[in-house]
Order: sequence, then structure tokens, then C-alpha cells
Amino acid sequence: MALKEKKVKLTIEAARDLVVNVMTAVGHNMLEANEIADHLIDCELRGLSFGGLPRALSVVERIRSSGLSQKQISVVRETPVSAALDGGDKVGYLVANRATDIAIEKARANGLAMVGAKETWYTGMFSYYLERVTAQGFAGLIAGSGLPLVAPHGGSKAHFGTNPIAFGFPTTDGPIIVDIGTAGLMLGEAVLKERLGEALPAGLAFDKDGRPTQDAGEALKGAFAVWGGHKGSGLALTVQLLGMMCGAEAAPVGLRDCGFFVLVMDPGVLTSRDDFRARASDFADTLRSTRPLNPNYPVRVHFDRSRAERSRRLAEGHIEVEESIFVALADIRDGGQQLVAQT
Amino acid sequence: MALKEKKVKLTIEAARDLVVNVMTAVGHNMLEANEIADHLIDCELRGLSFGGLPRALSVVERIRSSGLSQKQISVVRETPVSAALDGGDKVGYLVANRATDIAIEKARANGLAMVGAKETWYTGMFSYYLERVTAQGFAGLIAGSGLPLVAPHGGSKAHFGTNPIAFGFPTTDGPIIVDIGTAGLMLGEAVLKERLGEALPAGLAFDKDGRPTQDAGEALKGAFAVWGGHKGSGLALTVQLLGMMCGAEAAPVGLRDCGFFVLVMDPGVLTSRDDFRARASDFADTLRSTRPLNPNYPVRVHFDRSRAERSRRLAEGHIEVEESIFVALADIRDGGQQLVAQT
Repeated sequence: MALKEKKVKLTIEAARDLVVNVMTAVGHNMLEANEIADHLIDCELRGLSFGGLPRALSVVERIRSSGLSQKQISVVRETPVSAALDGGDKVGYLVANRATDIAIEKARANGLAMVGAKETWYTGMFSYYLERVTAQGFAGLIAGSGLPLVAPHGGSKAHFGTNPIAFGFPTTDGPIIVDIGTAGLMLGEAVLKERLGEALPAGLAFDKDGRPTQDAGEALKGAFAVWGGHKGSGLALTVQLLGMMCGAEAAPVGLRDCGFFVLVMDPGVLTSRDDFRARASDFADTLRSTRPLNPNYPVRVHFDRSRAERSRRLAEGHIEVEESIFVALADIRDGGQQLVAQT
Repeated sequence: MALKEKKVKLTIEAARDLVVNVMTAVGHNMLEANEIADHLIDCELRGLSFGGLPRALSVVERIRSSGLSQKQISVVRETPVSAALDGGDKVGYLVANRATDIAIEKARANGLAMVGAKETWYTGMFSYYLERVTAQGFAGLIAGSGLPLVAPHGGSKAHFGTNPIAFGFPTTDGPIIVDIGTAGLMLGEAVLKERLGEALPAGLAFDKDGRPTQDAGEALKGAFAVWGGHKGSGLALTVQLLGMMCGAEAAPVGLRDCGFFVLVMDPGVLTSRDDFRARASDFADTLRSTRPLNPNYPVRVHFDRSRAERSRRLAEGHIEVEESIFVALADIRDGGQQLVAQT
């Protein structure tokens, strides 16, 4: 898969159908396939294409190399304001959807809820779930741990996942969603650089012996630097511990047993729900119109850009995908059994 | 108050008595005075002396300039898993203690709780409250908003408070507590530099016209830079919105109406409580003993240093304070009515 290869233009509907058919071809039912497709297409629409159609290939590879779990997602502990899920090694889009649904339902009944999940992998964009939380008028926090890829500040061995943490708030316009990756480097970025033979920026990775490296392949065998120094390292540690609180291992081997934590809060139990939404909107507008450092770059409110990208692509009505990705997905849809390269 | 002035050595007990007597002299009852003293002395023991005895003078000044609120802390909304407090303009140490107590009690009953407070000021170290949360075997999140001092990323006008956010987790040893200030500069740091006529580090502040400045006085009239670029700005925005969810204003004028948010989680509703504590301990030990970048600097687990500092000072049995601070506090204790300079 070269970077500059020819692209195939697909209508959004065709792209979605392709993903649905690929996901049923590897054993998902229609409901599951649609849930996965909805997430991956949303990534494409928001310009995060590494998490879109190419990710469908990674999902297929993971399933074919380890077998599709025959287990179901199960609730292993439950209270009126909490649930703990065993994801049954199902792909994270499904597990996180279920966790989010349960958290929303319990927060609607009780004002507050948290749900944890273990035994899952690839949960995608946390903003996807937080959009659903905020659409109900709720605020939320989501954090997810994973396999060791990132060194703590001051160290050179990987102990943290890339460990994103995200917060979402409802407003009277679109939601405000803050999504913070705590790694200095994204996994997809490193994998792409390795494939292209390009150097990483300096200072973002260590090889397996703890030496600084700009070689992406060495970094993948070693560790990424954490984002944000000692403070960022604390945030990464927090996410790892939240994942462990969900029952996930501290250091899973390979792409499995990620932890997913979601907290849903009804602002209405602390203050006036409508007034909060209006004030959050006003505050966001204040930031958008505040004096910028550079007149050409207004201050951005978190999630505005994603929403604008999506609106633009929805209006265009199509997305583009590398031809080799399209060919590989079409082959799987049509019953091809060949293993595909991890993207 | 010059920086290099003579210091007075006080036993910990004498320092505590001094703060208690100062706080009763300005209208607090004994219970309140003891709560405040406990927090300020803990700051001294942990080496954060700007939040210790000097802060007692700031509290006195705030009370004398605005009058000690005759209002009490009141619960304005309540559910089995939440409470919203009106702090009644009482000093934050008291309001945050109350909020934390209520959150712990509700989490013990229901596994999860959140409490918000508005109309307060000076809540001190969030780790103080998280130590109490973790001592119960619970995990917690605390965030606090305040008056506009910090510009959003890409902007040059102040819209955020210094907005710390902190997370705490219990282990079988001491707790892991991560406390992240989202400002590039601490307020106390700027005030001290102004007093000493020293320059701020470059890139951390803007004057009132939005120009970069290293003059602390200009920075205090303008804005501090946010920590952590666009990601850090998102965290600062999150804290401001959590504060607003507690009912606090988006942009209070002066030292008043800070928002205080505390969430308490029982890990036992998601996983085995004892197993989680043991695994968190093991993970912390793994970090402490991981390969460091510099052999002389082992990786630090968050809160270890604070705890070690406190143990050392407790063993020494005394703290030191600038003579002018001691004299001013003794004067207040003995009935002096003069206003003191803000520290």
C-alpha cells in the first residue's frame, strides 16, 4: 500500500454497505456490522481516515488471526448506577456502544452512572460515544487503556497504552468534546512511517534498549514518549488505573483486554439543565470570538473542526479510499480468505 | 516581605495553634479554624509553603476586605448519588471538606457519587481531599474553576481559571494522586515574581493588549498562557465547564464563586476492591523500578514526593516561616486590625 496510490471515490452509502458486508463476512450479525460501519464511516467523514475503511482491514485481520469470539458481551457486576462488562473479546465499537447505552440509561434514572468494560480492543474515537452522551443532555468522561506502548515520563520502557481520555458537554448548539491522547505519537502514525520508511520527529520514541530513536520500526519494538511531561504522564497513569478499575490487565500482551471506562453525568442534578446548556454555549462563543494571537487563526473550540469536516463531506456525498484498501475489502466481502496486512 | 529575610522556626504544634487562633480571631468557630489549620499545615509539611502560613494572611485579607459571610454552607440540590452546595462565600477549605465528606458518604452507600459547590474561594491542594477519598478505598476526581487568569490556546485574553484537575487511586501502600494545573504559570509564582521585580520565563504570559510579556505585573493584568497547547487548553476548558456545572459563573470577577467538583468512585462496584488496590500497588512499583532515562532519576509515581517530604518534616518536628509572616499572624492572633498585604 503506497501512500500516493490511486484513490477510489465511493458514495457514503456504498462505503457503508462495503463495511457492513465485510463485517458480516467475518461473522458479525447485521446489527453488529451496522454498528461497526457507523463508527468507521463517521471516522471517514471527520477526516480521520486511518480509523475508517483501512481500520476495517485491521479488524478483519485481528478476527482471522485469533478467531471471532463465540462469547457475548456480558454484565458481570451491576448496581443502579454502575455496570462492569466483560467484552468477550468482541471488537470495542460494540462493547463501548453497549457500555455507553447502559451508562446513559442509568444516568437518566439516577443522575449519574459509570460503566467499565474489559476484554475488548479497538474502541475508536471516544468523541463518537460522547456525542451520544451529550445528545441526551448529559456530560461524560471516557478513558481507555491498552497494551504497553508508551514510556512514563523519565523512563524508556513502555508501560502505558496510548491511553486517551475525553470529556463531553452538551450545549444548545453542538457539543463541546475534548479528546486527549496521552502518547506523544499515535500508533497509526508510527505504523505508517514504518511502512513508508520515513523518520519520526525527534524526541518522541525510544528503541528497545532505551536509546532515543527516529526509526519507526525500532520505536514499535521499544516505546513512544508520553505527551505532556510529568503532568501528561500523570494523565496516562490515571487512564491506565481507570482501565485496571474496569478489570483490564495492567499490561495486556497484544491487541486484547483493553479497558474502557465511561462516566455519564446529568448536569440537572447539580444545577439547572437548560441554563447549563445555554451558559456552555455562551462560553464556547466567547472563546470562538476572543482575541486570537494570530488574526488568521481564531481560537478553536474542541469538536468544532470535526463537526465542520463531517458536514462538508456529508454535503459532498462521497469519501475517497486507497485503491488497494478498496480491493482488499471487496475481496473479503466476496468471500476471499487471504489475510491482509495490518494497517 | 523580602525573599531572603530571617526565618522563624516553629514546632508543628505551635504553627497549627497560630493558624487556629488567627482563624478564630477573624470569626471562624473552633471546628472551622481547625479544619483550615489542618490544610495549611499540611501544605507546609509537604513543602508547598506558599499555600501554608502565608496563605493564612491572604485568607484574613479576603475576609476583612469583604466581610466574613454570615451565610452557612447549604445543600441546594440532592439525590442519593449527588449534592450541589452553595458555599455561602466561605473559604474553600471548609466547603471542599464538606463536599468531599458528602461524596464519600454517598459513594459508600451507592458506589458512586458527585458533589458540586459554588460560591467559594481558596480550596487549596486537591490532593488533600483525595487523600481522604483514597483512605476509604475509593478513587476520585476533583476539578476546580476560578476567576479568569489564563488564555485559551491560540488566544491572548484570560477566560480560564488556573483550573487544576486531580485524580486519586487507593493502593495497598500510599495513594497515587495526580494533580494537574492547567495554567502555564501558577498565580503564586506570578505574584512572587512581581514582588521581587524578577522576569517571568519567556512564553508564559500576555499583557492586557495581548503582547507576550515577561513582566509579572503586566501578566497579572493580562493573561497567563495555558499549559499543554491545544490538548491542555481542552483540559482547562473541561474544568471551567465542570465548575459551571457546579453552578459557578463562567467568569467570576475577583476571588469569589469558584466551582469545586468532586467525584468519588468505589472500585468495588466494577471489580474486586482488594485486588484492584493490590494491582495498583504492583503497577506503581513497576513504574518506580522501570529503566530510567537517567540512572540518577528513577521514574516518580505521583504523590510519592509529597508523602516523603511530609514524613521528613514530621520527623524534624518543626517548620520555618518568614519572620514578617510570623509577626503579621501573631498580630492578628493578638487582636491587631491592620490589613495585610496579599501574599
